[in-house]
Amino acid sequence: MPTLQELNDFLRAEFPQSRCTLEELDDDGSVVVAHPVGEAELRPGGTVSGPVMMTLADVALYIAILAKIGIVPLAVTTNLSINFLRKPRADRRVVARCRLMKLGKSLAVGEVWIFSEGEEEPVAHATGTYAIPRDR
Amino acid sequence: MPTLQELNDFLRAEFPQSRCTLEELDDDGSVVVAHPVGEAELRPGGTVSGPVMMTLADVALYIAILAKIGIVPLAVTTNLSINFLRKPRADRRVVARCRLMKLGKSLAVGEVWIFSEGEEEPVAHATGTYAIPRDR
Amino acid sequence: MPTLQELNDFLRAEFPQSRCTLEELDDDGSVVVAHPVGEAELRPGGTVSGPVMMTLADVALYIAILAKIGIVPLAVTTNLSINFLRKPRADRRVVARCRLMKLGKSLAVGEVWIFSEGEEEPVAHATGTYAIPRDR
Amino acid sequence: MPTLQELNDFLRAEFPQSRCTLEELDDDGSVVVAHPVGEAELRPGGTVSGPVMMTLADVALYIAILAKIGIVPLAVTTNLSINFLRKPRADRRVVARCRLMKLGKSLAVGEVWIFSEGEEEPVAHATGTYAIPRDR
Repeated sequence: MPTLQELNDFLRAEFPQSRCTLEELDDDGSVVVAHPVGEAELRPGGTVSGPVMMTLADVALYIAILAKIGIVPLAVTTNLSINFLRKPRADRRVVARCRLMKLGKSLAVGEVWIFSEGEEEPVAHATGTYAIPRDR
Repeated sequence: MPTLQELNDFLRAEFPQSRCTLEELDDDGSVVVAHPVGEAELRPGGTVSGPVMMTLADVALYIAILAKIGIVPLAVTTNLSINFLRKPRADRRVVARCRLMKLGKSLAVGEVWIFSEGEEEPVAHATGTYAIPRDR
Repeated sequence: MPTLQELNDFLRAEFPQSRCTLEELDDDGSVVVAHPVGEAELRPGGTVSGPVMMTLADVALYIAILAKIGIVPLAVTTNLSINFLRKPRADRRVVARCRLMKLGKSLAVGEVWIFSEGEEEPVAHATGTYAIPRDR
Repeated sequence: MPTLQELNDFLRAEFPQSRCTLEELDDDGSVVVAHPVGEAELRPGGTVSGPVMMTLADVALYIAILAKIGIVPLAVTTNLSINFLRKPRADRRVVARCRLMKLGKSLAVGEVWIFSEGEEEPVAHATGTYAIPRDR
């Protein structure tokens, strides 16, 4: 299975615009992905923009799947559902912890908790489904 | 109620990083928002990245609400659910048509259809809920 | 492809507890399914219970798929997302109109609008995904 | 705050058709709700019907909210999203564990894990939002 380094290399190649980085690859299969928060992620008033958190959720799910099945660039999101819970902090990275609930032959389903780094209460929660190509 | 020009001005002020533009403001309350597709929106293989479509869906919902209630910068997304249906074209803008299903006192719910410009089959479909501040 | 009568027969065999009936099978592939509303569907205060509308959405999606691919009892729901929009009437049936957004080889995605019969404003809106068995 | 007994009494009064029972009320605010599985819950082939699990998810969310805010019959579901993960067993009850992710002034958001009783792998996962009346 791929290492943290290999997954980060893949992330930079496959999502060249993404500023996400894989931070942890845990034994239980969960992954931790972070996104910086700066001018480009903030809206007036100091809110982290919703699309930044959706991007983070999508990338975290993708990485959690690749960590389990190996690097399969063709897996595609079929569904993502996100609940925004609290206002994230403007001065911290947003960090996502993702764990798969199911890894079937053709579908993987996972959940993602998003936090402002170092805080206890989640700022968002997402669930998503990826279709996995049959012939890999 | 705000004009197309006023909403576009607001969009640039409130989401300075966004490349979305409001294209149409229809009499039935639906809005059409577009996002360019270029290097920054593509992943290797020529796929428009999922987060671009999520951003477009989120902005389209927001604009559809503001078009009805006036410019209220504090409305916040509480939930967004998106289904990815088909691969978008790499050589066309993505265009979202959004219509509200409900506009209540405290919640607005809308649906968004996303197309590659000029194509008939949708590439994604989203539904979302925004919380509207009480004291506006 | 199956007729309305065949689909209703299947519905009674496959979902023996369901009180849903298929009412229309339209040329564009959309289907109309109805559920009676009586004592068993109401909560105190005269609200149609949420689960009745979720059942109706699920059955309508299933029937819309079967109407297109033939009667395949093994198709299973993988995801259902529903927004409740307005209070349904206590004295009318609830009626769902469902149309598929995508019918792929392994996944079908559809949307469902639910109304109190004869009313114009929808009471709920759902989207759902079904997995279709490969070897059928 | 209400006791387990009071919540079960309320459940029987408010959802007279429901066969759900509240089994646990934990110190961290999570609740455990069960639904029997028998002829009325099974589809041919021995699958627990999807609507049974949606009902269970909806009731578990409702009870988790009431356990925190007191018995407020007017709280209404605004959104429910469910992923079906595995086939439940035909010979066991289905059991839902629900925990709130957010309890705001006007919205509560929770997640629900559903299991066949005694099994380790979840059969479904749901998230839902309830609107809480302002003047309670």
